[in-house]
Amino acid sequence: MIRQISLCASLFFLFFFASPKFPYANSQNIDRTAVIAVLEDQKNAWNRGDIPAFMNGYWRSTEVTFAGRTGFTRGWDTVLTRYQRTYPDQASMGHLEFSELEVRPLGPDATLVLGKWHINRPAGDVGGIFTLVLQKFPEGWRITHDHTTSN
Amino acid sequence: MIRQISLCASLFFLFFFASPKFPYANSQNIDRTAVIAVLEDQKNAWNRGDIPAFMNGYWRSTEVTFAGRTGFTRGWDTVLTRYQRTYPDQASMGHLEFSELEVRPLGPDATLVLGKWHINRPAGDVGGIFTLVLQKFPEGWRITHDHTTSN
Repeated sequence: MIRQISLCASLFFLFFFASPKFPYANSQNIDRTAVIAVLEDQKNAWNRGDIPAFMNGYWRSTEVTFAGRTGFTRGWDTVLTRYQRTYPDQASMGHLEFSELEVRPLGPDATLVLGKWHINRPAGDVGGIFTLVLQKFPEGWRITHDHTTSN
Repeated sequence: MIRQISLCASLFFLFFFASPKFPYANSQNIDRTAVIAVLEDQKNAWNRGDIPAFMNGYWRSTEVTFAGRTGFTRGWDTVLTRYQRTYPDQASMGHLEFSELEVRPLGPDATLVLGKWHINRPAGDVGGIFTLVLQKFPEGWRITHDHTTSN
């Protein structure tokens, strides 16, 4: 399977090969385009070096959770600060791409999204996989939990 | 916070400090005891060296997914075989404990469970964190996605 496919190709894939086998019977009822758009907006924000805009994809709450190498981190502000410290400039952020996105609805207002991420940058490429939970709020779909792993 | 608290203590914690702030408004409507029981059954099966019984906690489907160090793995049978190869005997499996379990309902038939895992064994302890998605089937709650990370 091609590791680096564009978000556009992922979108095509999702629409045409969406699995009807998952337990949530009305899986076609969630707006997959809106879910994917959250990730696309994040990718675009990252690639123009705009961390606060990238963070818009997350639930703006002290209860949003991030699981990673160092364990669990909780809170939108905490994670924003950490990103800004870890990536002080656009060069350190590099160019982000997502691939092999899989959207699995969990109910009318919640979905799982699995995928791969890759950052191309002068200091050396990094990448890995992620598990996201997105939930639907009046303002739209937001990531409420993010478990990201590096290769 | 104590890293190794018993499942019983976790259960107590979950019942008394369950957050009402999460987006799914009817968060009290899912049967948290049944969800926690899936993990408790898994722990007990693991600790008596019974990998097939441990695997009963997972959705018995070719579509169940596991995210880990080596990327995504898909399918109940595939994962059973891998566990049996990685842990050929009870000594290699060691003693498993879960701690700091957090149950976050995502709808009437889906929930996120976050937590920590620790295995005590002669060959050296291992542990880390996990993100689980459980969904409700006619046969009960089953893990449909597991993202587990080692420290």
